[in-house]
Amino acid sequence: MTFPDDQPLVLDSGQTLAPLTLAFETYGSLNADKSNAIVICHALTLDQHVASNNPLTGKPGWWNSMVGPGNIIDTDRFFVICVNVVGGCGGSTGPASINPATGKPWGTDFPVITIHDMVRAQVMLIDHLGIDQLFAVIGGSMGGMQVLAWAVDYPTRVHAAIPIATSYYHSAQNIAFHEVGRQAVMADPDWRGGDYYDAGLDGGPRKGLAVARMAAHITYLSEAALTRKFGRSLQDREKVTYGFDADFQVESYLRHQGITFVDRFDANAYLYITRAMDYFDLAADHNGHLASAFEGVQTRFCVISFTSDWLYSTAEARTIVKALNAAGGNVSFVEIESDKGHDAFLLDEPEMIATLNGFLDARARDCGLPTSAATPNIGVDG
Amino acid sequence: MTFPDDQPLVLDSGQTLAPLTLAFETYGSLNADKSNAIVICHALTLDQHVASNNPLTGKPGWWNSMVGPGNIIDTDRFFVICVNVVGGCGGSTGPASINPATGKPWGTDFPVITIHDMVRAQVMLIDHLGIDQLFAVIGGSMGGMQVLAWAVDYPTRVHAAIPIATSYYHSAQNIAFHEVGRQAVMADPDWRGGDYYDAGLDGGPRKGLAVARMAAHITYLSEAALTRKFGRSLQDREKVTYGFDADFQVESYLRHQGITFVDRFDANAYLYITRAMDYFDLAADHNGHLASAFEGVQTRFCVISFTSDWLYSTAEARTIVKALNAAGGNVSFVEIESDKGHDAFLLDEPEMIATLNGFLDARARDCGLPTSAATPNIGVDG
Repeated sequence: MTFPDDQPLVLDSGQTLAPLTLAFETYGSLNADKSNAIVICHALTLDQHVASNNPLTGKPGWWNSMVGPGNIIDTDRFFVICVNVVGGCGGSTGPASINPATGKPWGTDFPVITIHDMVRAQVMLIDHLGIDQLFAVIGGSMGGMQVLAWAVDYPTRVHAAIPIATSYYHSAQNIAFHEVGRQAVMADPDWRGGDYYDAGLDGGPRKGLAVARMAAHITYLSEAALTRKFGRSLQDREKVTYGFDADFQVESYLRHQGITFVDRFDANAYLYITRAMDYFDLAADHNGHLASAFEGVQTRFCVISFTSDWLYSTAEARTIVKALNAAGGNVSFVEIESDKGHDAFLLDEPEMIATLNGFLDARARDCGLPTSAATPNIGVDG
Repeated sequence: MTFPDDQPLVLDSGQTLAPLTLAFETYGSLNADKSNAIVICHALTLDQHVASNNPLTGKPGWWNSMVGPGNIIDTDRFFVICVNVVGGCGGSTGPASINPATGKPWGTDFPVITIHDMVRAQVMLIDHLGIDQLFAVIGGSMGGMQVLAWAVDYPTRVHAAIPIATSYYHSAQNIAFHEVGRQAVMADPDWRGGDYYDAGLDGGPRKGLAVARMAAHITYLSEAALTRKFGRSLQDREKVTYGFDADFQVESYLRHQGITFVDRFDANAYLYITRAMDYFDLAADHNGHLASAFEGVQTRFCVISFTSDWLYSTAEARTIVKALNAAGGNVSFVEIESDKGHDAFLLDEPEMIATLNGFLDARARDCGLPTSAATPNIGVDG
């Protein structure tokens, strides 16, 4: 939907964005008292197609196994909303959108946005839908940052919050990896200072963006996962070629990750979203005291981390949990044993499924909503 | 020195390289029975200037504090040799050298070399110097791989071996990071398929090589080191700029690492040397059995790792130690507590200094060479 010009999105930078378009998907039905809404927040390179085919890639929803009728996030009971983040490239206003002042794509004239801006845009949609309080906000990675921002910025509007595989701030190492990606994009002469939209479908900084994706992708997997998946196995050959072809399967896999990414993602959007993540620091927003950020928050939290996630480590999740406890908050914490690295949150991890199911059922009981007992096919093996 | 055409370097690939030039530095004097020689093997982007100013950068030797008169590697007692690796860009034959068949720089026509080839070239120099057995071979990171290759390929010619912060093979994650760097270089149109030497001093793939260096540099530091050094501190400003300038100090630091690197390193050499490291797998060279690689090796080993090194982890060092034990080898192992990451081997880590001193003294006694007692200023605080 597109909000009228007199309903701009007010950004943390002080700038405003109008008209604001938000691309979103919904699943299930909003109940009569509008108490069964769940917002799912997506990660950096994902989109609003959480449980439906992505029309661009033709691929199934990125959390298809989690969201749907009879699934853990049960669309027979919950009304699920997933909004493409502002600054992105899935249909919401972003750097590839038309700048009304020029009639041309924004490019790098697009204002820098923050995680809080992404959430503020979602609030506009929730207001539009007439929903006072969300039953839950759920998300992994950058989605988890939005979950935290939701609870902190709108403490009365979120009953339950499930931040998964995420952090309350972007560490120096995380910023460093993002900066490598941005420099890879900007080093590509086809980036043209961000003004590449006239160059046709294949005219953008494809090589630079592919390199950025390759570097980032390494951080999404654990060393153990890479070793298990590929080790030093060679690609369709018995011995090394003494050359620079992709001798090793892991090289071929990474190249494929890079090449396919550029077909589905806008390079400028990658710059803007990584910047938003780098800027995220809930503690700094509250004079360096993370606990202060959570002061007065009534939301029930379920924080989930994965042992082998080195991008957003369990240590960072524990810091969130400690701050919530210090602020008198209500929090459950589950560290899940997995060697799959950061991307474990996108996979059918049985312990994550069981945790989500138990927590959502308990919160549903709080709110007088139906529980999973009504849909008997739910469960770890469901 | 340059070997005559009839003394080519025979490579693992089956190709030969002639004439072979080796650039090297020596420190101290070879004793009468030629029993006091130490070869120091350098890491990926380092060079032969281990303890003397680098004429290109004007910077002091990269292990100045370790190597010199009265230092731990005491040039009053030992004859220290450090050779620029073949395939590099410090004066030894590499892709920027003239291909005698064409009279032009080799570029990517240069043959792919391996860690074993690097060592084989060093053996030619050692033979030329008339040295039968080295007292010790010492090196960190890729230097450590050469140390292992020395001991395995020339089991009678190395009395003591000190591989530091290294591994017996390049893991999938390590290959992945190198592949990102190579793709960053190759994505730069100024790379021109490796044929950029005519383009003048500033004509190479500077942007791509800088991105490669930035990505690699992250892997040389631990997350803790990055957090301690930079955290989320801003660069000369009180608040973020809402832009893509280097707001954070860590961004500025990484950009500086990238920019300064391209002034001192040849992009093609970076491709060739990373490839050599990726190909390194001592176990695969011996039917997958690392212990078999060490069968019959008489060398005394001192293996050193650092707790926060995630590039070449302690687990990999332990695998080397176990294989040496299984092969009946003689090995000491020290895991040093440090939060400085992989690059700790380049720093004055007191425990590393003490370990090296103790091990070298014991080996000097084996060989009837003077010990550090003769140079009383050596020690942890020396």
